[in-house]
Parts: sequence; structure tokens; C-alpha cells
Amino acid sequence: MKALKERIIADGIGIGTEIVKVDSFLNHQIDVALLDEVGLEFARRFEGCGVSKILTVEASGIAIACMAARHMGNIPVLFAKKAAPSTMTEEFYGAEVKSFTKGTTSVVRVSKKYLNRGDRILILDDFLAHGEAAIGMAELVEQAGAELVGVGAVIEKEFQGGGRRLRERGCRVESLAVIGSIRDGKIYFLD
Amino acid sequence: MKALKERIIADGIGIGTEIVKVDSFLNHQIDVALLDEVGLEFARRFEGCGVSKILTVEASGIAIACMAARHMGNIPVLFAKKAAPSTMTEEFYGAEVKSFTKGTTSVVRVSKKYLNRGDRILILDDFLAHGEAAIGMAELVEQAGAELVGVGAVIEKEFQGGGRRLRERGCRVESLAVIGSIRDGKIYFLD
Repeated sequence: MKALKERIIADGIGIGTEIVKVDSFLNHQIDVALLDEVGLEFARRFEGCGVSKILTVEASGIAIACMAARHMGNIPVLFAKKAAPSTMTEEFYGAEVKSFTKGTTSVVRVSKKYLNRGDRILILDDFLAHGEAAIGMAELVEQAGAELVGVGAVIEKEFQGGGRRLRERGCRVESLAVIGSIRDGKIYFLD
Repeated sequence: MKALKERIIADGIGIGTEIVKVDSFLNHQIDVALLDEVGLEFARRFEGCGVSKILTVEASGIAIACMAARHMGNIPVLFAKKAAPSTMTEEFYGAEVKSFTKGTTSVVRVSKKYLNRGDRILILDDFLAHGEAAIGMAELVEQAGAELVGVGAVIEKEFQGGGRRLRERGCRVESLAVIGSIRDGKIYFLD
């Protein structure tokens, strides 16, 4: 997606060889107009797939999922929680997710009420890096007996292998910008 | 806001005397069409106030803030973080926020780059209960020397006093549904 890649080049900051900082428009401050285009692009790529619900994980994925849902007939968005809230009183599906950047493992949860057999789920998130979050969400979909239509990421860091891991599981992956490497503060796209 | 109150009555669940569970459409599963109306209503109420940026806090506030921003000329959304991410390498403003439901205290942070003198800030969130999150965000705005235009909440639990505390500080508060009490599983609105 051209506008996105141009924005990453203009405002993204490469740090070391693994981190791309896009907090001026994607995951701290949000450019709503850009995210609307991002949402439209996901809707275009998964058109005709019969997606019934979008699954994401708090926090940065929420804006992306909502913008995509608008362009997919206002289907519901469900966001997995990283902590069990006091109001999550009923049963939930849970999956462990390791964070490589934080060095922690957490459990992502969704209430059993909102993920059901017969649902056709599209997983969306801001980043696809090692794939831990997406694989965790895919496990939630599996636990529910729902069908996983695919995974969409705004930015894939190809060199961290998450996209490959998902494709090896037979999962369709659509990334709007694929970064091949980060060197000397510069960001190099693969596509 | 009529459609919102009808939805709270239809799908909200009153628990005890303090909790209203709206995770079927607001803060776990999200009804994007309803949130779009919510965003439009905030835009209407704060029209002509020269809002330059919307500030919210992860996670549930993000969807609301983005939907409102769309109706306010696609102004930027900034969401405060509850944990310091590894990519937040520069200086930040921080404020302590107590959670009554969780019994914990956390620090909400925004990068100094994205909150500036001259900004006219609208704070939006899903709930206004004791007011801790909104007051914490107001402190971030003050630290930056920006101007606070007002606070908007989708649901205010009036009996928990957050709205009163904010108004006593001279802050304009707009809540789209104001709950006066919760009894025997029933939700009673004030307005």
C-alpha cells in the first residue's frame, strides 16, 4: 500500500536492526485518515471471503479493526484482553502470548459469548513480527470452533518470521507494508 | 443520546450496585455503527470549540476517539499508555491513575512530542466513574501547557462522583448516557 509505505519512510524511525517506531501515526498518535485508507485496503483484500467478525488484541489493533469493519458492512469487532477485567465474569478462551520486545508472557482472553462456531474471523493487528500475538489469536479462534479467514497486518517485519510461521500453518496473511530489513536508521521494504 | 440508552437497556447488564457490563457492544465486542453515532454526537456537542486533538487512554477509549475524530475533520487521536513500551524512548508526561475496580494504581503516559502548548484537547473515554482516568489525563494536558476543552464520556456513573469532581475543577463534561443507580440488575438513567 503506497500511501502507507510513503508515510513509514517519511515519519517512521528505524532503531537498531529490529525496531521501527511509528508512534507518530499508528500506535500512540493515530492518523485517522490514513487508518481509514488502511481499513479500506483490508476490506478490498478480504472482499468476498464472508468475514463475519474481526478479532484483534488491545490496544493498537483496535483502531485498525474498527476502521476496517466500517468498510466491511459494520461487522462486529472483538478485541482480546491482556488482563482479565473484573467484569469478565463468564467463561473465556485464553492463549499465551510471548512478547519478544518486553520479554514477558501474557494471556490474551476473549469471552466465549463473542466467538462462536460458524463465525468467519479475520485477525487484524498493527504489527506482524514474530507472530506470537496472531498465533495466540488463531488459537482462540480454534478453541471456539470458528473459522479463520486470514490475518492482516499493517506492517510486517518479514525478518522476524511471523508471516512464515502463519503461512506454514496454512493461514492466509495480508500485510500492507513488508519490511525486509532495518539498517543505519533506514527502513527497507521487500515489496 | 437515545439510541445509546436504548442499547444499554437492551444489552447492558447491571451487576450489584456499581457495575454495568456493556462488553457486548462497547468495551470487548464493539458495535462500530453505534460507535459512529457516538462519535458524531461528541462532534456535535464540541462543535466550534476548536479541538485540535483527542486524548484517550488504552484500550476501550481508542475506538470511541477514532470514531469522533472522523467527524471532527480527522484531527489526530493520541492514546495514553498504561505501560512504558520499549519504543517510548523519548521523554513523556506521566500521571498516576487509581483503578477502584482493580484496586491498583498505574501511571498513564504520553510522549512529550505529541502533546504541546497551543493544543486544544478533548478527552474521551468509554466510562466516567470515579474520574481517576479523566483527571489523570487532564494532568497530562496541564503538564504540556495545552488547553483542556472538555471531557466526553459515553457512559457516566453519576453516583461515583467523577463528573462532579471534574466540574468542580472547572472542566466541561459531556456524557451521552448518565446512570443514576443500578439496583436488582436494573439500570436507571438520570437524564
